[in-house]
Amino acid sequence: MTTLSVFMDVPLVQKLEGGLLKTYKQDDYPNKMFLAYRVCMTSEGRPWVSSVVHKLRLQIAQDPSLNYEYMPAMGMKSFIQASLELLFGKYSQVIVENRVGGVHTVGDSGAFQLGAQFLKTWRCNSQTVYIISSQKELHGLVFQDMGFTVYEYSFWDSKQLCMNPNMLLDVLEQAPHGCIFVIGNIGNCKLTRYQWAKLMGTMKSKQIFPFFDIPYQGLSTGDLEEDTKFLHYFVSGGFEFFCSQSLSRNFGIYDEGVGILVVVALNNQLLLCALSQLMNFAQALWLTPPTTGARIITSILCNPALHKAWKQSLKGVVENIMLIKEKVKEKLRLLGTPGSWDHITDQNGTHSYLGLNTKQVEYLVKKKHIYIPKNGRINFTCINACNIDYITESIHEAVLFTKGSERRFQNVSDSQLE
Amino acid sequence: MTTLSVFMDVPLVQKLEGGLLKTYKQDDYPNKMFLAYRVCMTSEGRPWVSSVVHKLRLQIAQDPSLNYEYMPAMGMKSFIQASLELLFGKYSQVIVENRVGGVHTVGDSGAFQLGAQFLKTWRCNSQTVYIISSQKELHGLVFQDMGFTVYEYSFWDSKQLCMNPNMLLDVLEQAPHGCIFVIGNIGNCKLTRYQWAKLMGTMKSKQIFPFFDIPYQGLSTGDLEEDTKFLHYFVSGGFEFFCSQSLSRNFGIYDEGVGILVVVALNNQLLLCALSQLMNFAQALWLTPPTTGARIITSILCNPALHKAWKQSLKGVVENIMLIKEKVKEKLRLLGTPGSWDHITDQNGTHSYLGLNTKQVEYLVKKKHIYIPKNGRINFTCINACNIDYITESIHEAVLFTKGSERRFQNVSDSQLE
Repeated sequence: MTTLSVFMDVPLVQKLEGGLLKTYKQDDYPNKMFLAYRVCMTSEGRPWVSSVVHKLRLQIAQDPSLNYEYMPAMGMKSFIQASLELLFGKYSQVIVENRVGGVHTVGDSGAFQLGAQFLKTWRCNSQTVYIISSQKELHGLVFQDMGFTVYEYSFWDSKQLCMNPNMLLDVLEQAPHGCIFVIGNIGNCKLTRYQWAKLMGTMKSKQIFPFFDIPYQGLSTGDLEEDTKFLHYFVSGGFEFFCSQSLSRNFGIYDEGVGILVVVALNNQLLLCALSQLMNFAQALWLTPPTTGARIITSILCNPALHKAWKQSLKGVVENIMLIKEKVKEKLRLLGTPGSWDHITDQNGTHSYLGLNTKQVEYLVKKKHIYIPKNGRINFTCINACNIDYITESIHEAVLFTKGSERRFQNVSDSQLE
Repeated sequence: MTTLSVFMDVPLVQKLEGGLLKTYKQDDYPNKMFLAYRVCMTSEGRPWVSSVVHKLRLQIAQDPSLNYEYMPAMGMKSFIQASLELLFGKYSQVIVENRVGGVHTVGDSGAFQLGAQFLKTWRCNSQTVYIISSQKELHGLVFQDMGFTVYEYSFWDSKQLCMNPNMLLDVLEQAPHGCIFVIGNIGNCKLTRYQWAKLMGTMKSKQIFPFFDIPYQGLSTGDLEEDTKFLHYFVSGGFEFFCSQSLSRNFGIYDEGVGILVVVALNNQLLLCALSQLMNFAQALWLTPPTTGARIITSILCNPALHKAWKQSLKGVVENIMLIKEKVKEKLRLLGTPGSWDHITDQNGTHSYLGLNTKQVEYLVKKKHIYIPKNGRINFTCINACNIDYITESIHEAVLFTKGSERRFQNVSDSQLE
């Protein structure tokens, strides 16, 4: 008897992510380059790990007093507390008033998964999600899979070559009452005092629920407080919100994928109710979260000397990023590449837009074997002393030899582009 | 202006789990005991960790060649391969035919979460789940939260004091065509050849999809192959199935919560389609799984000497459990406790039913400060030389001094119970 397969109607998923990396790996060209790694790279081209982390790994492995029992579903208490203090400051309003809490989450999307499940159940009258960030975010899929209607917007203005707060405000204008706003990288978008007031005013009057994304606190400006300053605006504005705080990248423990889902409520009682529901969801998701990452982070954050050394290591990374960006800009200037390249140094963080159009990107990938995403947003830590000349010369060529379907340089005449 | 809270209508969840532990912790009685820990305990009353694990933790922390980059969404390849070989044997039919695969999952419920998401999407014509095990399982909640209709059954027969295969077959008889059967601990339920044939015949004709739970391979009989023998029956029977393999408890790395979701398909092509869809779900769940647990396990399984030492350590645990059970039975015999206590040694694994009724359990908790769940299923590794006398004497008392609403000993006269 032939049996029909249960999986008969299940189609193969065409991989959306990783396509660029796959093509890169299949390329035989000896000087090929990949500038789209998610992690921060060292100048030797290896994933960056904060120097204090190695020591801690060893210390934890040697600690005979450690208990390897299951964690509670909520996760490691001391880790949650330390993460919240890192985010808001020990003496911040929400912490003192005991109306912020967190659930220990797994991986880089765990906090979104958990938050989305909560909102699916407890915000059932508004299942529309606006994802607005400086880039395309993976968590759009999380909400989509759960049945939310998802709209995605970027506030990177490819014409003006900057993060444009007005694009954020425009989206907000059209957004329906009561929807959910997932906001990534807003720290990179420089809003004036007036724009902040308008943003928060509209969100409040439309009862929009904010869900922030803090993917790498401290790796944006190099200053931990500066990177999360905007959260205080929302706290002071009387908002309740969720926040995904991922702590893999700023410690360099990518393989441990650890974070928390932060809940800010109007008072402690409301907070406890929300947390108790979240704990139930977390139990169904993973029952208890893995602890290695949380242990490493807690040990660092709770030890003043290590905490300081870690902060210093973050500063070092960001200074290095700025240096690379300056060098790229300077090299392009010396090459006489048309256009202004100030937008490179105007952007914060490891990943920034080169400000190239599709044709120019295609030129780099196809002709120069420099693999970068279609939107031209690259990881600047992938550029180092060994490859900077080749990369900047290739960008120069790409700008000169391509004729863009959409112009990047409005001040460059057609003849120059041909 | 007063703001209404987003969390206004969110009620506090009354904790279902952990209630017993909480009461235990609040108890001031100096000789209180908790016999319901999920993890295997040593005779010193600490969570058991396989002796090889400590060494590996240190070795991994010291390894300068390790790359701490993000894992792929599917997880650690070598870990998945090693886990599958552990489950089926290196040269088993499904591995040779390349029609079994796995996705690296997080925590003890991750595999169920992932599998349930897949079935929710791809088996939409039958959203009924039967959970049948020797005990109440937590993953009922996973399926319930996702909107499945869930029925839960135990094949522990509290009258006959045994795992009763007929209860399993009876449930199967009523189950609707095409439903999902989540089967836990079936290795503990001794089916005759005829009962196996009947079970598989009915499942096949009703097109029931099996989803097995292997929570601690090797800790049931002490023999890794024996514990998963039933999987081969299903493979030979031409079944496709899912299987949650958790590897936290049999290595003693409870805090790393690691496992895989196993997929067996009729052929490689079908398998690849199913895996590609699962990878998408995993990406939304946690993006990339944490690796410490997987690294420890892979290093042990792929090193013949460590593998052997680990196997030996499992045997040691199971021998110790049998010894404890024998001692408990012998002590009850010497005390003259009414009834036969053979069911204690007839059951496999760390957790087994004492075979007490509700009143007797209540007596132990309230009068003797021995905390055990209502169904009387305890963790026998919590019993050691220091507490065995108190525990057996208390059981003796409980049996003599309570009058059960449901009788446990049908051969005991009423007068004896009073």
